[in-house]
Amino acid sequence: MAEQQNETAERADRDAAREGDEDFALDPRTVEAIVAAVEAGDAAEIERLMEPLHPADIADLMEQIGQGDRARLLALWSRGIDGDILTELHESIREEVIDALPPDVLTEAVRDLDSDDVVDLIEDLDEPQQEKILDALPDADRVAAEQSLTYPEYSAGRLMQREIVTAPEDWTVGQAIDYLRAAKDLPNQFYHVILVDPRRHPVGYVTLGKLLSSKRAAALKDITEDSFRPISVLDEEGDVAYAFNQYHLISAPVVDEDDRLVGVITIDDAMAVLDEEHEEDVLRLAGVSGESSIADGVIETVRQRTPWLIVNLATAILASAVIGEFSASIQAIVALATLMPIVASMGGNAGTQVLTVAVRALATRDLTGSNTRRIIWRELMVGLLNGLIFAVIMGGATWLWFGQPMLALVMAAALIVNLLAAALAGILIPLGLQFMRLDPALSSGTFVTTVTDVVGFLSFLGFATLVLLRH
Amino acid sequence: MAEQQNETAERADRDAAREGDEDFALDPRTVEAIVAAVEAGDAAEIERLMEPLHPADIADLMEQIGQGDRARLLALWSRGIDGDILTELHESIREEVIDALPPDVLTEAVRDLDSDDVVDLIEDLDEPQQEKILDALPDADRVAAEQSLTYPEYSAGRLMQREIVTAPEDWTVGQAIDYLRAAKDLPNQFYHVILVDPRRHPVGYVTLGKLLSSKRAAALKDITEDSFRPISVLDEEGDVAYAFNQYHLISAPVVDEDDRLVGVITIDDAMAVLDEEHEEDVLRLAGVSGESSIADGVIETVRQRTPWLIVNLATAILASAVIGEFSASIQAIVALATLMPIVASMGGNAGTQVLTVAVRALATRDLTGSNTRRIIWRELMVGLLNGLIFAVIMGGATWLWFGQPMLALVMAAALIVNLLAAALAGILIPLGLQFMRLDPALSSGTFVTTVTDVVGFLSFLGFATLVLLRH
Repeated sequence: MAEQQNETAERADRDAAREGDEDFALDPRTVEAIVAAVEAGDAAEIERLMEPLHPADIADLMEQIGQGDRARLLALWSRGIDGDILTELHESIREEVIDALPPDVLTEAVRDLDSDDVVDLIEDLDEPQQEKILDALPDADRVAAEQSLTYPEYSAGRLMQREIVTAPEDWTVGQAIDYLRAAKDLPNQFYHVILVDPRRHPVGYVTLGKLLSSKRAAALKDITEDSFRPISVLDEEGDVAYAFNQYHLISAPVVDEDDRLVGVITIDDAMAVLDEEHEEDVLRLAGVSGESSIADGVIETVRQRTPWLIVNLATAILASAVIGEFSASIQAIVALATLMPIVASMGGNAGTQVLTVAVRALATRDLTGSNTRRIIWRELMVGLLNGLIFAVIMGGATWLWFGQPMLALVMAAALIVNLLAAALAGILIPLGLQFMRLDPALSSGTFVTTVTDVVGFLSFLGFATLVLLRH
Repeated sequence: MAEQQNETAERADRDAAREGDEDFALDPRTVEAIVAAVEAGDAAEIERLMEPLHPADIADLMEQIGQGDRARLLALWSRGIDGDILTELHESIREEVIDALPPDVLTEAVRDLDSDDVVDLIEDLDEPQQEKILDALPDADRVAAEQSLTYPEYSAGRLMQREIVTAPEDWTVGQAIDYLRAAKDLPNQFYHVILVDPRRHPVGYVTLGKLLSSKRAAALKDITEDSFRPISVLDEEGDVAYAFNQYHLISAPVVDEDDRLVGVITIDDAMAVLDEEHEEDVLRLAGVSGESSIADGVIETVRQRTPWLIVNLATAILASAVIGEFSASIQAIVALATLMPIVASMGGNAGTQVLTVAVRALATRDLTGSNTRRIIWRELMVGLLNGLIFAVIMGGATWLWFGQPMLALVMAAALIVNLLAAALAGILIPLGLQFMRLDPALSSGTFVTTVTDVVGFLSFLGFATLVLLRH
């Protein structure tokens, strides 16, 4: 019987592995099995199921399960938590998990981390929790982490690791290889040897592959890579991620204000930043806080989303006040009330298209001073063409529906006006926000739909009042 | 005079460098200077300004300038185009540029590329252009590229490079180092030596750093990395990018259907895929084709955007038909026409928030079978809470504005109903699309706002008709 159970468990594991292999992510069946073990209080089974998982998948699992299951899991399995899992956890549950760990587990967990991971782990924690972790570090690591924390949030200084491999600029390949082969404390991951002058200014770097394949007598400075691009500690992490992606960097030296080498950033950290920035952008465009997570509870979620709904309510009231001005016209021709949302909706959608393209082009540095005028012109032309297309379609539809040619003309004119307004608002509002050094993703959507709602109702009801009622 | 001009030019260059240093991207002033040189037909000046630029920046520049300038630039400077620039160009202008190149320049440009870059370059070209480039390649590279093209689009097989560094699994560190030092044709970039068994199955990999710092007598198989994770040639590139980001991979071996090693994917390619997929997602959410580019002309842009506007028109007409059903009520109480867009707008915004969070969580594998029920429940609770909050605010505002308590009650009830509908539609529609193996980002927005428009108008006008008019 026990054997049969084991067999079933094994088959499930194999299935899970195959499924997992297919799309890499954590398998939902594994999550269910672990939740079942947690609810049964079976620590040995949890251990068995957790053992093959990658720290990133364990972190995802802890985010996916509910708060109650998480607390029970931590009580049963706190010794399993290591530093890698902690750094992978979303900020929204990191504090909760750290609070639940016995002090010795926490100490053990953070001791093995590289300096950049320690900083990443503690930068968003409360002061007392930060202290708890800093105290657990060996002195040298503690000083390094504290130093990194003096750099501004989201700066290259926070992102870099301080473990670097350097060589004097006048060394040969042979000297560098001998040095590396004798070195004790090399970083876990490194891809380049950075050449420094006597004042510790980085002057170039050599890949390990090039080092291995060059003659021992060759000078290091003759085999450096073109891609060498030092980053300043104060550069923003978003700019750093952009540089890695744009210039295909694998690692880049980080220098202080005196151009002296203080650390190195590697591509895996840059990739994580790129991913986070994208995530924030897309959420902000929809009026959701960029910090939101699948692990957030109801109250936290309401807190993140309500502010933009309030802003939207204010703009909706504004649009509705515009309609209120035309009550008499609507009373006279009730078809106006039926048709007016179409004008607003088409404008809102077209505006959102233009705006999204503009926000993305600004984020990827594709929309710059040199092509702004051309792009504004393009969007105006697109808006005009779309306006003409939908004027014909919807003008025709209105004529068929209500049999009133003048009403159809009013619809056509309002659509052209509103699609032009959508084009202008969609491009000028993000540009204006960027010019004022605000995040173009953050509030463009609301402003643009306010414009298209107000212009949509105003033009449609206004034309109708002029054409249909003043005769 | 000439000297003074040179000095001015130099100062501008220094300024540009400093500015460029600040945010890495191509400097708009450089673009302007190059456009000026193009218009003046000054080939020497173009050469001077282009020389310090990175291929990725040159590609950006060609995307940013207008089509006319681009043609003139290519005529004056075609010899400057190399393979790296071609691979960086956005697909929308790549064909145009390749067509403008003299055959010998094109041959020269593609000869130096790695196999993955050749495939990336040609996969979207027309047959004749593909042939032109394949013919320019040395035989071995041509065969490799043709082989890669037999894998499906967006598969790991298209993404991988075929240049790999392997060692038999039973070698020692010393043997591997000697082999590498003697090897002639190592890839431009490599970070691991992949261990293979006699049947060419990859069994592990060793970083170059570990190789350099280990004793010559050590067995390679004792110093392999835990992160080792083979990828199948048929895996989708999006899944590959996810795996790199999730598991902090730097490179990963690619195996065929028989688990034999056929290539390797490196993190810089995975990062580019991650970036593209994000870009497509955000554009699709806004109803724009994921292929769109800042270099597209007016007609191309209209072609990309009109289809979703037509879908939106259909749904707007549906919503407006709902309003039409209540013409009598609106004629009786014209305030209904004024207030009804508020209910629809609040629902649309709340629905977009829920939907965006859901689409992102699906893309990042954070929303899975194991937490779906919890998240649906959370969104319903958030919708209910938001409904209550805005029922109070907007109910109160309606009472103050129109002085009719029953109208205020109708507004409050309609808001609660529509925010609940927004929550349900926002989560269930992307889940349903995903379940049907469609892209949840592609059409969710239209479906969700259709639901919130229809439910918004129906509930508000319906309640009003029941409560205010049937008494």
